[in-house]
Amino acid sequence: MILYLLDLLGVAVFAISGALAAGRKSLDLLGVVVIAVVTAIGGGTFRDLLLDQHPVFWIEDPIYLVVILAATALTIIYTRFRKPPSKALLTADAFGLALFTISGAQIAEQSNLSSIIIVLMGAITGVAGGVMRDVLLAEIPIILRRGNIYATAAIMGVIAYLILQQIGFNRSVAALLGMGVIAVLRLAAITWGLTLPVFSLPDHESE
Amino acid sequence: MILYLLDLLGVAVFAISGALAAGRKSLDLLGVVVIAVVTAIGGGTFRDLLLDQHPVFWIEDPIYLVVILAATALTIIYTRFRKPPSKALLTADAFGLALFTISGAQIAEQSNLSSIIIVLMGAITGVAGGVMRDVLLAEIPIILRRGNIYATAAIMGVIAYLILQQIGFNRSVAALLGMGVIAVLRLAAITWGLTLPVFSLPDHESE
Amino acid sequence: MILYLLDLLGVAVFAISGALAAGRKSLDLLGVVVIAVVTAIGGGTFRDLLLDQHPVFWIEDPIYLVVILAATALTIIYTRFRKPPSKALLTADAFGLALFTISGAQIAEQSNLSSIIIVLMGAITGVAGGVMRDVLLAEIPIILRRGNIYATAAIMGVIAYLILQQIGFNRSVAALLGMGVIAVLRLAAITWGLTLPVFSLPDHESE
Repeated sequence: MILYLLDLLGVAVFAISGALAAGRKSLDLLGVVVIAVVTAIGGGTFRDLLLDQHPVFWIEDPIYLVVILAATALTIIYTRFRKPPSKALLTADAFGLALFTISGAQIAEQSNLSSIIIVLMGAITGVAGGVMRDVLLAEIPIILRRGNIYATAAIMGVIAYLILQQIGFNRSVAALLGMGVIAVLRLAAITWGLTLPVFSLPDHESE
Repeated sequence: MILYLLDLLGVAVFAISGALAAGRKSLDLLGVVVIAVVTAIGGGTFRDLLLDQHPVFWIEDPIYLVVILAATALTIIYTRFRKPPSKALLTADAFGLALFTISGAQIAEQSNLSSIIIVLMGAITGVAGGVMRDVLLAEIPIILRRGNIYATAAIMGVIAYLILQQIGFNRSVAALLGMGVIAVLRLAAITWGLTLPVFSLPDHESE
Repeated sequence: MILYLLDLLGVAVFAISGALAAGRKSLDLLGVVVIAVVTAIGGGTFRDLLLDQHPVFWIEDPIYLVVILAATALTIIYTRFRKPPSKALLTADAFGLALFTISGAQIAEQSNLSSIIIVLMGAITGVAGGVMRDVLLAEIPIILRRGNIYATAAIMGVIAYLILQQIGFNRSVAALLGMGVIAVLRLAAITWGLTLPVFSLPDHESE
């Protein structure tokens, strides 16, 4: 029950971040809703398709869509009057990432998949919605572009979750600690501007 | 039978609009075919994957691909000699949108899904092909960008279709009226330049 | 066994070409890995989803991911010290294309699909990973843009493969000859700069 509420909260946070990103591109109202929906459910949808999990989670339980529509409407109304609180939002987004990633990893775990696939499915669930948002906005996805420890935090969190279970921790405790790793890494990266190194080839090598 | 012919007509119209869009980007002949195919079958394919409907409609019945190839070839030949008739095409596209959207909604209906999902599946079937076309052409999808009542018409049409059934209309009549709502809204939007309001955040809020 | 090794080689080659493409965009290390993975397994994944083949090939056999990670790591290390050998890479890529395309066609063949679908599935397996790579890098996919006989070679190879079987060749021989057609066409196109004609509409027709 708490997990379900947290999941809905994660969807709402991701919808808000999608709506704000859309607002910077001057889309129309429907466009904003589309981007918010894609950001919030894109990762989980891709995971369900890859794992052949049907019905896809939001088809089975449309309350997700209702939450997204409500969060988007509130975002549009709120930003008419005030500046969006970017610090609060980044923090909420870090928790959304933590939650989506570990819940995605747990769904992959139930299908008895190998560890590398569980890590990948967790990361896909956490970040693919943001990637799709950026593709629709015709930008190179932010998680690829800047070395700002986003997908990296997700990957580290799932690895921690798997190792903790291996050394004897109970599944729920391992999940909570895995989420903690993601949120802490992500918040640390935001606070201190940590980045991954960039891999860059000189242009004369192109073609 | 008539529905099937209308469906093929819708595919042809969407293929033509894809080919014309590709022509503006100076793609090679194969690129034009790819864009035409994606525009015409992208929405229905995405719907079938989400609903786990296999085989995907054009894998089961490849006549769709033959129609697309023929429509694309005729478009390329025709535009060698004449200007494409943009007014006629926009009108045809409006009917294609109407048809695809309602037929997508009906397929979702057969799986006993909730109303919000039926509306979404109808809209996805109608507009996702155009979204994929624009993503491949590295542009922000036109349905997000301009408030020109495109996806909005699709959504209104499915809602009308569902309400009409609820108040006692027979399914086929409701479908025809739903298509009418979409085509009329879309043509009205084209004729009078109706738009949705734009949601725009000042740039200092970005980051 | 040999086919499996060739398949892994194809994945490695595509991962390298993805990593090099990412390097030109100055992505961070994780971004490079993501682009390499998408380039290498995108086409096969899309084919498996369309054909409802589950588990998806790299979920069933994660060694593909290990090979991709190793190939990407070696690419990053190698390019620290030397210029990437573009000629050798293009040649390797031609063989990767040949192999992926024919193996994709064979998987479609096992599901008793019509010839046009087999050709399409072969081509999708061969080229969709590169298309996804370019979409993520916010570029119009190279196979659409330049008429450089890439997808065309894939299509011709599958057609040759099907015709050869029809006229009595044994399946393995037909497969080898089909791969040969693809590799030769592709290498010829590179060597002599062969292209398809471009389809271009004057801009006054847009809108």
